[in-house]
Amino acid sequence: MAEKSSGQDSGNAGSNAMWGARFDRGPVEAMEGINSSLHFDRRLAAQDVRASRAHCRMLGKTGIISSEASSRILEGLDLIEKELADGSFPFDAKLEDIHMNVEARLAALIGEDAGRLHTARSRNDQVATDFRLWVRDNIDALDDGLKAFQGALIAQAETHADTIMPGFTHMQGAQPVTFGHHLMAYYEMARRDRSRLADCRERLNECPLGAGALAGTPFPIDRAATADALEFREPARNSMDAVSDRDFALEFLSALSIAAVHLSRLAEEIVLWSGPQFAFVRLSDSFSTGSSIMPQKRNPDGAELVRAKAGRIIGSLTGLLVVMKGLPLAYSKDMQEDKEPVFDAAGTFESCIAVMTGMIADLEVDKARMAEAANAGFLTATDLADWLVRSLELPFRKAHHITGSIVKLAEEKNCGLAELALAEMQKIEPGINADVFSVLAADKSVASRSGLGGTAPGAVRAAIAIARKELARKELE
Amino acid sequence: MAEKSSGQDSGNAGSNAMWGARFDRGPVEAMEGINSSLHFDRRLAAQDVRASRAHCRMLGKTGIISSEASSRILEGLDLIEKELADGSFPFDAKLEDIHMNVEARLAALIGEDAGRLHTARSRNDQVATDFRLWVRDNIDALDDGLKAFQGALIAQAETHADTIMPGFTHMQGAQPVTFGHHLMAYYEMARRDRSRLADCRERLNECPLGAGALAGTPFPIDRAATADALEFREPARNSMDAVSDRDFALEFLSALSIAAVHLSRLAEEIVLWSGPQFAFVRLSDSFSTGSSIMPQKRNPDGAELVRAKAGRIIGSLTGLLVVMKGLPLAYSKDMQEDKEPVFDAAGTFESCIAVMTGMIADLEVDKARMAEAANAGFLTATDLADWLVRSLELPFRKAHHITGSIVKLAEEKNCGLAELALAEMQKIEPGINADVFSVLAADKSVASRSGLGGTAPGAVRAAIAIARKELARKELE
Amino acid sequence: MAEKSSGQDSGNAGSNAMWGARFDRGPVEAMEGINSSLHFDRRLAAQDVRASRAHCRMLGKTGIISSEASSRILEGLDLIEKELADGSFPFDAKLEDIHMNVEARLAALIGEDAGRLHTARSRNDQVATDFRLWVRDNIDALDDGLKAFQGALIAQAETHADTIMPGFTHMQGAQPVTFGHHLMAYYEMARRDRSRLADCRERLNECPLGAGALAGTPFPIDRAATADALEFREPARNSMDAVSDRDFALEFLSALSIAAVHLSRLAEEIVLWSGPQFAFVRLSDSFSTGSSIMPQKRNPDGAELVRAKAGRIIGSLTGLLVVMKGLPLAYSKDMQEDKEPVFDAAGTFESCIAVMTGMIADLEVDKARMAEAANAGFLTATDLADWLVRSLELPFRKAHHITGSIVKLAEEKNCGLAELALAEMQKIEPGINADVFSVLAADKSVASRSGLGGTAPGAVRAAIAIARKELARKELE
Amino acid sequence: MAEKSSGQDSGNAGSNAMWGARFDRGPVEAMEGINSSLHFDRRLAAQDVRASRAHCRMLGKTGIISSEASSRILEGLDLIEKELADGSFPFDAKLEDIHMNVEARLAALIGEDAGRLHTARSRNDQVATDFRLWVRDNIDALDDGLKAFQGALIAQAETHADTIMPGFTHMQGAQPVTFGHHLMAYYEMARRDRSRLADCRERLNECPLGAGALAGTPFPIDRAATADALEFREPARNSMDAVSDRDFALEFLSALSIAAVHLSRLAEEIVLWSGPQFAFVRLSDSFSTGSSIMPQKRNPDGAELVRAKAGRIIGSLTGLLVVMKGLPLAYSKDMQEDKEPVFDAAGTFESCIAVMTGMIADLEVDKARMAEAANAGFLTATDLADWLVRSLELPFRKAHHITGSIVKLAEEKNCGLAELALAEMQKIEPGINADVFSVLAADKSVASRSGLGGTAPGAVRAAIAIARKELARKELE
Repeated sequence: MAEKSSGQDSGNAGSNAMWGARFDRGPVEAMEGINSSLHFDRRLAAQDVRASRAHCRMLGKTGIISSEASSRILEGLDLIEKELADGSFPFDAKLEDIHMNVEARLAALIGEDAGRLHTARSRNDQVATDFRLWVRDNIDALDDGLKAFQGALIAQAETHADTIMPGFTHMQGAQPVTFGHHLMAYYEMARRDRSRLADCRERLNECPLGAGALAGTPFPIDRAATADALEFREPARNSMDAVSDRDFALEFLSALSIAAVHLSRLAEEIVLWSGPQFAFVRLSDSFSTGSSIMPQKRNPDGAELVRAKAGRIIGSLTGLLVVMKGLPLAYSKDMQEDKEPVFDAAGTFESCIAVMTGMIADLEVDKARMAEAANAGFLTATDLADWLVRSLELPFRKAHHITGSIVKLAEEKNCGLAELALAEMQKIEPGINADVFSVLAADKSVASRSGLGGTAPGAVRAAIAIARKELARKELE
Repeated sequence: MAEKSSGQDSGNAGSNAMWGARFDRGPVEAMEGINSSLHFDRRLAAQDVRASRAHCRMLGKTGIISSEASSRILEGLDLIEKELADGSFPFDAKLEDIHMNVEARLAALIGEDAGRLHTARSRNDQVATDFRLWVRDNIDALDDGLKAFQGALIAQAETHADTIMPGFTHMQGAQPVTFGHHLMAYYEMARRDRSRLADCRERLNECPLGAGALAGTPFPIDRAATADALEFREPARNSMDAVSDRDFALEFLSALSIAAVHLSRLAEEIVLWSGPQFAFVRLSDSFSTGSSIMPQKRNPDGAELVRAKAGRIIGSLTGLLVVMKGLPLAYSKDMQEDKEPVFDAAGTFESCIAVMTGMIADLEVDKARMAEAANAGFLTATDLADWLVRSLELPFRKAHHITGSIVKLAEEKNCGLAELALAEMQKIEPGINADVFSVLAADKSVASRSGLGGTAPGAVRAAIAIARKELARKELE
Repeated sequence: MAEKSSGQDSGNAGSNAMWGARFDRGPVEAMEGINSSLHFDRRLAAQDVRASRAHCRMLGKTGIISSEASSRILEGLDLIEKELADGSFPFDAKLEDIHMNVEARLAALIGEDAGRLHTARSRNDQVATDFRLWVRDNIDALDDGLKAFQGALIAQAETHADTIMPGFTHMQGAQPVTFGHHLMAYYEMARRDRSRLADCRERLNECPLGAGALAGTPFPIDRAATADALEFREPARNSMDAVSDRDFALEFLSALSIAAVHLSRLAEEIVLWSGPQFAFVRLSDSFSTGSSIMPQKRNPDGAELVRAKAGRIIGSLTGLLVVMKGLPLAYSKDMQEDKEPVFDAAGTFESCIAVMTGMIADLEVDKARMAEAANAGFLTATDLADWLVRSLELPFRKAHHITGSIVKLAEEKNCGLAELALAEMQKIEPGINADVFSVLAADKSVASRSGLGGTAPGAVRAAIAIARKELARKELE
Repeated sequence: MAEKSSGQDSGNAGSNAMWGARFDRGPVEAMEGINSSLHFDRRLAAQDVRASRAHCRMLGKTGIISSEASSRILEGLDLIEKELADGSFPFDAKLEDIHMNVEARLAALIGEDAGRLHTARSRNDQVATDFRLWVRDNIDALDDGLKAFQGALIAQAETHADTIMPGFTHMQGAQPVTFGHHLMAYYEMARRDRSRLADCRERLNECPLGAGALAGTPFPIDRAATADALEFREPARNSMDAVSDRDFALEFLSALSIAAVHLSRLAEEIVLWSGPQFAFVRLSDSFSTGSSIMPQKRNPDGAELVRAKAGRIIGSLTGLLVVMKGLPLAYSKDMQEDKEPVFDAAGTFESCIAVMTGMIADLEVDKARMAEAANAGFLTATDLADWLVRSLELPFRKAHHITGSIVKLAEEKNCGLAELALAEMQKIEPGINADVFSVLAADKSVASRSGLGGTAPGAVRAAIAIARKELARKELE
């Protein structure tokens, strides 16, 4: 419609109805293809209507437009919202973007007054507002996902607060730990992830509306009113910054990249643990897939995909950093490249966190297999060294040397530390007595690490109790 | 169909027909969402059919399957190809990926013999083959795009072989150059881009078919025959490498990233040149857009988007490098993340090169404005220094010092070098004589740089002649 | 010393004194080269001593070691601190890293008691503590740098609160703005940068000491005491997370990447503004460099380098994200790759912010040139459209169309909007009257944007006043 | 010297001797810090002398400078080369970069004629030449490293051509393979890496000398002569491209990134294989390190570091892509950021390949452990399916279903496929007969995959024979 009437008015067939008055020709096809953003920015439709409604109410209240015009526009926006909800909204790719589509549809629905909505506004402050709203909405949704993930971790950690497994450093057996403790490490990561998203949310929560194209507006608008209506903390303080800032997108992508790296680490562990060499856990059928050729396979596809998706999200972050690098103020079209990486990363992370939550909740643990591995490989050697320090008052470094020799002996004899004869140990360090056997079993080792943050079942249960309280709170500080 | 019958056979409702026999339950929704690749790998449909056809013919010829079965499968594949072409192919997201979709459709069309197609093949070698074919096809298409871009550059370079403009270093006026010479620099970049893509094509051109899941196959297949039928140079030499190698995707993305950086440089220049401060060029309406608020605007959106898209392509490269980092052999599901960045980067580059080609072809140059800028700012100071070297046999370093003092003088007098009185120059260097004025004009400067690769109109025309010959050749060496 | 005695004890010549008891041979040269971190982690020396001191005091107070041993160790650490300060500390690359160097030196200085320092500690929690301290120290230093930068921006913004220049979108003239307003946009960016660093500081401020190798420790340590002594908010809550978490490094790099992108944008502007086509500013000699061949050149090398360094910092972020992706818990040697990117990025950013602060402080502005540019190019077209809305009550969209036609007319006549005859405008829109000329000059346009965040001199001064108050506060909330 | 005299001449104390004539002040400290490149570009010293020598000879031969001057300069360069070699060259950071240092030293050694060397040359073409020479030299060195790595792979592959191990997909046991075959997959990757470097070398092998600052030169130089003397294929064809092109650096970093990803994959495998759960291999003491706290540890630090270094190299690539994005022609100072990532990546890769070569050469394989793993986990299920196809002429898809059911049965009975009774299998598929047992052992499975690229010992030995021939050739095509 608008498209056609503009064609009739000015004869510049094909040029854009919204800005085409001075143009003799419209863009060629290749240009239209690269320029149109409707196929992705239509995801901002709800936010666009929300922001337009706030802007319109303010225009009416301040008398910049008549209250009749304001009412009519609001009614039109209601209709549009309904059309968007029921899928009947007639998107038109020729109209470049979602903002033009909404405005053109408004004109079709309510006539000329539609043209008053863009008073004291530009697409530059409009899109900055819409996009911030979208990111804010999605931070809230992803925070819910992270909370659910934390919930699943806590539940399994509680079940396995005293399940003993080998703790690894360098992927070599290091010291025995509890599986609950291991899982609670991921709780901490998710806690920081949520905290980063909360900070990002707080920092982005300034309203660009009123910045206009870049310089502000001569109309006597009420920026506090629109900010308030859209639940922004305050209006953005500098109009040029407001329209050219994409920190919120970059920070959101940074936070998701770090969070995705966390998931990739857990995913790697699940892949390993579910494989035949570890065989610590079994994934449920819900999270396993088979092979088109090898009938025996149970593949941890979900975990592998979560591991890989970190790359995708990091790629989105890198991409947008490159886009923004070296861009002069204020708005440049380059910034249209801000949305797809953000949309993709948010959606990717959402599905990763859902899959990971499901996998953790469903995980079946082979406690016997874990315990067996924890008792092999001299994992209590540090306990032996610590015993030497405590009981014989040796400097740690000396105790470490002695323990090294004892381990070497056990290796040669192909037995565990607890299986060495006392006399053999005494040949290496005469002060050793039978009490040493009280620290050489994996469960003793674990139980002894009972301080704050340690792996002892009690310490893990204490950490779970704190975590439950945190989760019960509405949100992180 | 296959889906249903498997359900009937085994009661494991919901599990995958192709590999689900051992599974009691199918994947949950979140898992299915992250696991399915059909929404993007359907772009491999044509390649999948092509590769299946080659595989099937070979199975028939070697007697691994009967020639009747082979014929029936080929007929089915023909039907599928038609359905794909006319849009009637019934894609089913439950069947995970394009390979399963094609095989299931084949079964629906020709019955049980469809199940013989996957003999001596796995999805692992199948997808590696399909994807290589896709990249190869797209290299050919992008090479066409780059050739067209080179053609546009040459045409404008010829028109402007003697159009004088300031050459910049550090974005400061440096020495006069010709616009044709400047454009031919981009010809060179595109030449290397094409050469990189050609090398990538040559290197990827090995056929994975026959690698099976990872170990090869016990069937007496003829790998040379399938490689040949699909125009691969040779069969891949190691089955584990063949199914786990994604170098071709990484190298393709690297080549596109570098090429995109080239376009971003030209795009930056077009943005600057078309702005009011430079005003060297005017973009046609076809490549300009307007503003929703500022009616005077003519925005170089196309150039800005091309500049930005480099970020997107670099992001894709980074993302896939992250995905592949640290993956053990052979195939892991992580590799499913290889396709979207490649598809996106290829499509992005394709539209960038089309827009850039159009912009270059359409560019209107303001020769007067360029010439004016080339004659301002002491751009022939180097010519003066060189004259001092040649005429007075001064060491260059000394000549550079003297010229610096003369430039300082002209700055103070707020005049050009050519406008200084001879006597004034002689106060700084007594040996200077009137011949010096023969090198102080921009056109003289340009004309003097006539050696191979220089900016003189003749040298530019010589470069164009070579370029035309290269373009006429079918492809780069 | 330790090195030698271990050699004597066990005959394993060349193996490491600290852990070599079980090893028959030491590492080969290539391995030693890749493994040693001393050449970079010696930068943690001060933090290592600080953390060791806190650990030692706690060991003494809790009676885990005797108070005599504790005192002796503390004396030794004092000596080491002095040696580090005066450059006499004997670094030994064979001892792998800074931690081993300090401990070995301690043994040389005070004898066997040195071996007691490592009681209830591992290099894993030690390095995590040292590195957090280093990042925390550097956040504080960089915050000072950012404050100085903000100070320089405010000072120039005040000087130029009413200096009129063209505001750009798409690098095309958009609307007139004040230079002070433009600069204050960067104040806002730096405000967010500081706020991001403050959040990062708060989040990292948990003390890993006591996490041991990964599982905690059986010794009755007082984690609150060491956390307190090192001014950490609290002890880290999960030992496995404490030693394997590098979020703080990633978040620090993310914050610096975003901040570096901000600087790159201003740097790009300075490069353009100081070039002959814009000629808006002149860099002082202090921030300009010359050419080895072109004597007239004044190159904005500082700005170009700041622009480029964003790439370097982004590369460091990307690199560390790749390193951390998919790493199983707890510590892996891969994490040794965390320090160099962080050190490099911090140092790079420090020098960028110093150079940028100096350039801004020194910047000479050509007000006449800026004003001239602001009055060319129909930059008040939006003001005309807004006038049509306000005075004739036209819908904005219609006003935009009319203005487009008037701009086209002025373009054809090659004159400014203010130079069109009233009658000519009235041919396009009869309602226009002479009052329209009150909005067509750049200074009128700027003055009219007086609302919060607008570009009017008064609004800029109000923003400066708020900024000064913020800067006076000790730190951001 | 030059420094001082320039100070005396012009009173601009502190300004640069080479270009400072017009400057009243020199740069401030922060600026000098960011601007100086000497601390890293001194690594180009050898290349700088080499290129200067070629340039000087050409200047003499063409008569652009006298043959006396030419001889004197060459003598000076010889002295400088010696000083560089014996460490007596007096580097001076004030002189910005290596080029200025060499020229200033030349002046000190031979006097005013030194100033003639820079005739018909600029630092822009000079550094482009030096840097290309450096990259070319390093490609040659890295190719040697890759060849040695291939040699180590081949040697181990030969030893283990019939060592059976489980082949993995999704890190789950898939099909038995030979360890030799697995290693030869890395031979293929290294083959492509070498081929990529060779292509990069060929493409960069154009000589920038003569491009001058950006426009060429008015002197009658002989570009073919310098190109020839420096063993470049030909002179670069476009002067603006020649000085602003950094494709060779980007392509080099891309090739190294891909190669580093390969090494990271093998490194991940070595980390896993050497851990207690796999225990497939044992690293020699030369490539293992111990723990400061856990005396039993043998950590695969070398492998972990190689895995991590991929991140570092990818970061360098990303960083330089960001630097180059959007840079207008010709040279900008940003490009000074090209060297450090390239130097760092080359050095990093060099040490990675050396460590990996050593680790592979030293690797001790536990054949029994590998064989045991290969015979567990139903890895011959595909062989069973293939037997059903071949012997009973079942469609593969149906055979796959039947095999799935047999595997499920074996899982329930907790036995291997070969341990099922024939009667039990016949309950599932009556056609099965005793011949089926001929394919159910891992060694039978491996032996049957004897085609080109398959895992059978014979096929592996054939691949080794081809590889040996390739290695014997001087270089890849």
